[in-house]
Amino acid sequence: MSAVVVVHGGAWAMPEDLAKASVDGVKAAARQGSSVLKGGGSALDAVEAAVRALEDNPVFNAGHGAVLNAEGEVELDSIIMDGRTLASGAVASVKNIANPVSLARAVMEKTSHVILACRGANLFAESIGMATVPTDELVTENERKEWDKQKNYVTGVMENFNSQWAHDTVGAVAVDSDGNVACATSTGGIRNKMVGRVGDSPIIGSGGYADNLSGAVSCTGHGESILKVTLARLILSHVEQGKSVADSSQLSLQYMGDRVRGAGGAIVVSPSGQWAATFSTERMAWAAVDQDVLWYGLHPKEKLNEKLGQ
Amino acid sequence: MSAVVVVHGGAWAMPEDLAKASVDGVKAAARQGSSVLKGGGSALDAVEAAVRALEDNPVFNAGHGAVLNAEGEVELDSIIMDGRTLASGAVASVKNIANPVSLARAVMEKTSHVILACRGANLFAESIGMATVPTDELVTENERKEWDKQKNYVTGVMENFNSQWAHDTVGAVAVDSDGNVACATSTGGIRNKMVGRVGDSPIIGSGGYADNLSGAVSCTGHGESILKVTLARLILSHVEQGKSVADSSQLSLQYMGDRVRGAGGAIVVSPSGQWAATFSTERMAWAAVDQDVLWYGLHPKEKLNEKLGQ
Repeated sequence: MSAVVVVHGGAWAMPEDLAKASVDGVKAAARQGSSVLKGGGSALDAVEAAVRALEDNPVFNAGHGAVLNAEGEVELDSIIMDGRTLASGAVASVKNIANPVSLARAVMEKTSHVILACRGANLFAESIGMATVPTDELVTENERKEWDKQKNYVTGVMENFNSQWAHDTVGAVAVDSDGNVACATSTGGIRNKMVGRVGDSPIIGSGGYADNLSGAVSCTGHGESILKVTLARLILSHVEQGKSVADSSQLSLQYMGDRVRGAGGAIVVSPSGQWAATFSTERMAWAAVDQDVLWYGLHPKEKLNEKLGQ
Repeated sequence: MSAVVVVHGGAWAMPEDLAKASVDGVKAAARQGSSVLKGGGSALDAVEAAVRALEDNPVFNAGHGAVLNAEGEVELDSIIMDGRTLASGAVASVKNIANPVSLARAVMEKTSHVILACRGANLFAESIGMATVPTDELVTENERKEWDKQKNYVTGVMENFNSQWAHDTVGAVAVDSDGNVACATSTGGIRNKMVGRVGDSPIIGSGGYADNLSGAVSCTGHGESILKVTLARLILSHVEQGKSVADSSQLSLQYMGDRVRGAGGAIVVSPSGQWAATFSTERMAWAAVDQDVLWYGLHPKEKLNEKLGQ
């Protein structure tokens, strides 16, 4: 069977001036994930590589380019999960780490825990010799300006998800040629969030889930809404009951809108290579590589493609 | 319809010398929750009151009586959830708080977030004037001794869940006379856990979930295993498909054992007042008040009862 990787750069009402850079960014990340799969890497390797590419790109709210919290600090959340064993690792509210997804993977592989938070996550990073970066290196000039402008979180979140404007999460899902699935999600959260606020991204079953028996999901959107409906797990529950990955995503996002009035998006891949990128926000930059075709989109129902290598 | 409250004091291979105090403790907590319901309180009020009683009782690993982490500190996790709206609040790795469940409720009611971790949770506690207690007040003399004896987490968790010995989580679920359900879970985690380790207890869908459309669950057992299968959500998925709360619990615990070799327990209540207390460990102290009868047990299949008021 053919390996597939799908990535997203966040579901939100992205302003026009970020649109091109976001689409370029997700396309590059999907290519990155795909080349890992083509080189014989696992789904887990592919989602880590794709998410690292998104974290390294200051256009996206994860790693470099993250938003600032109420104290003007960067606190990052990330998860990674291996569908073979349900093994998972996550970090929550970690500071000064450029690639939280790789720290999450280390939590999964080098500890007997699943989630490490705050200072504990940083102590662990130090213990395995992971380099730290100064906050200023993670923050863009534009973010400093936006943060100064918008210091009220309540106003912010309303504007962001119920009408306009916010930076959001990145993520990737993949299936490799052995039929193993994996997911990874990473974010700086919501601008002006309270210190220690943990969103959906590092929470298993909400920001992501991967299970070789059903598929892998990475979610994005209003974190608190995603948490309330455990969106990743909800989507896979529908898949388990025989629905397609596209219908399962659509139904679950619709349910989240109806039940808790939250908007968001999700990417899903099944062990047999079915995939979907779905959202209820105005825009979500996404890209996928399936065989030799790079698919991508930004607006609802948009599904463009080009031959890989172009 | 009649209101019901069910509580647990943790699923683990509890040593004989704690058995009586644990059963007495869960019975007292169930009575506490029941008297809130009888006084016209909501399911949410009842689970908070019941869990506060368990947190205040040093026999249980939550609030007073919590275990120590690798640094010899107490870091507490808790969640509360309201099945009417799916509103939820949680604190992770919070220090010096006697009743984390009440702080979790404040996160739900006074912030626009769902989870606050570590220092951020403490800053929030301070901002709402919640009293702090010194670590030494939360720790029992016995715990200090056990911690000194058992400094290796890996040995610890093996002994605890795959054969013998550990303190564990407490929790409560309730349905009130309006058919609203709620859950709450609280814990000190695993002895010698890494700093910042977050277990299943504060994680929505894993340590607990409550939804008026299906029921409320509080879980206990090996946190990392519960997280991998998002146990609370898994149980309610079975309920949604028409299975009884008892069968749903049994099936899900069996699945957790088969898939990730983890043991644990769960209490569940449905909006119509069906309830179950189920575990795959050697023992779980639990108690329930249904109409005027107090039910309780400690060993598998044990279901004792006495008239309330005795």
